[in-house]
Amino acid sequence: MYTLFIGNKNYSTWSMRPWILLKQAGISFQEHLIQFDDFELDSPFKTEILKLNPTGKVPVLVDADVTVWDSLAICEYVAEQSPEKNLLPQDKKLRARARCISAEMHSSFQSLRNLCPMNIEADLGHIGQKLWAEHDQLRADVARIEQIWSERPSEDSFLCGEFSVADAFYAPVVMRFVCFQFPVSASSQVYMQKILSLASVQQWIAEAKQEQMFVPLDEPYRQNREEYLTN
Amino acid sequence: MYTLFIGNKNYSTWSMRPWILLKQAGISFQEHLIQFDDFELDSPFKTEILKLNPTGKVPVLVDADVTVWDSLAICEYVAEQSPEKNLLPQDKKLRARARCISAEMHSSFQSLRNLCPMNIEADLGHIGQKLWAEHDQLRADVARIEQIWSERPSEDSFLCGEFSVADAFYAPVVMRFVCFQFPVSASSQVYMQKILSLASVQQWIAEAKQEQMFVPLDEPYRQNREEYLTN
Repeated sequence: MYTLFIGNKNYSTWSMRPWILLKQAGISFQEHLIQFDDFELDSPFKTEILKLNPTGKVPVLVDADVTVWDSLAICEYVAEQSPEKNLLPQDKKLRARARCISAEMHSSFQSLRNLCPMNIEADLGHIGQKLWAEHDQLRADVARIEQIWSERPSEDSFLCGEFSVADAFYAPVVMRFVCFQFPVSASSQVYMQKILSLASVQQWIAEAKQEQMFVPLDEPYRQNREEYLTN
Repeated sequence: MYTLFIGNKNYSTWSMRPWILLKQAGISFQEHLIQFDDFELDSPFKTEILKLNPTGKVPVLVDADVTVWDSLAICEYVAEQSPEKNLLPQDKKLRARARCISAEMHSSFQSLRNLCPMNIEADLGHIGQKLWAEHDQLRADVARIEQIWSERPSEDSFLCGEFSVADAFYAPVVMRFVCFQFPVSASSQVYMQKILSLASVQQWIAEAKQEQMFVPLDEPYRQNREEYLTN
């Protein structure tokens, strides 16, 4: 059985990707959550994760003697080990598209990433409004994401038809958009609702809210965790 | 037949990856080079590439009605279309490793990327020495790359045994290390020589040197192209 090492569900976008993929596919795995801290080299987080992964980051998937330490590589690995789950589309064109948009999410959108860390328990709409007004590049990142979402095969489909690796990669983005309340199109809202209503995503959100931890490095906008809580 | 759209060979690391992969695998393709310019939205470069790729970047692979616009997605696509070429290792563990280190190169090493743009025709060893002394994070990036290289199956092998996608991803890094002359280990030098002696890499280098263009945005360290030329 797989073991998936992840970080805090409230904050860790990179962990959320493979977790959602495995849950949504109904592939069983052991979850091992390593709590975020100050990320100093001798911190408990770094001490534990560095035993598994020389980059010192989550997520890490362990499958017997195979260790996979990058979120995109984990998704490719899982898709390849369970071809019957169609986690990458069979259609050649959609399959290439799923890989392109996942890889794009993997390497781009620095402005969104830097300005808008995921924070599932918080409602940072007032911050989002300010960021939106002040940062051209943030608006460009959101516009590109909305373009990608708008090109899904139909209004009520996932990004490449059925649920795939691509949706797992964009699920954390949905969480950022909810937290910062960006003014996205009606079509984007339809896609966001589709993601938010997945059982796997609902479970992730519920468990994120149960954590009740405050990691200063992931909190550029709050002084403590009682501020701006969602319902 | 594939068409691969690339940027200047002297500068474009992301273009180099799939080009080297296709050449090294002996897969024929048409090459279409779009010259770098000032990258303004209405520039010739952007005008041409935006017709193919909404992100406005190279490389782009076109295969009949399939357009693949990310370097990692292109390599996965080519590997999948030509399984007999073993562009990803068959061994499960090495295959996962090839994907991990390629994905890591795709999303990380920001300090190396930002401070040391590829410049094949230039010898910037004096700049490299200064950067090396001043930037901890650059030294950390290089150390992590050397660690990855040191974990190859044997001293004279490629990163995951036979030549694979992973080597195509690290070939541009070899070019950066040559240009900036970082003080790497003897083992790293063996790997670098192995990459530099590939026919595909030698062809890329020769064609880069023939370009004789100067793109100011890619030249933080030279005033003109006659400065610091290699032999």
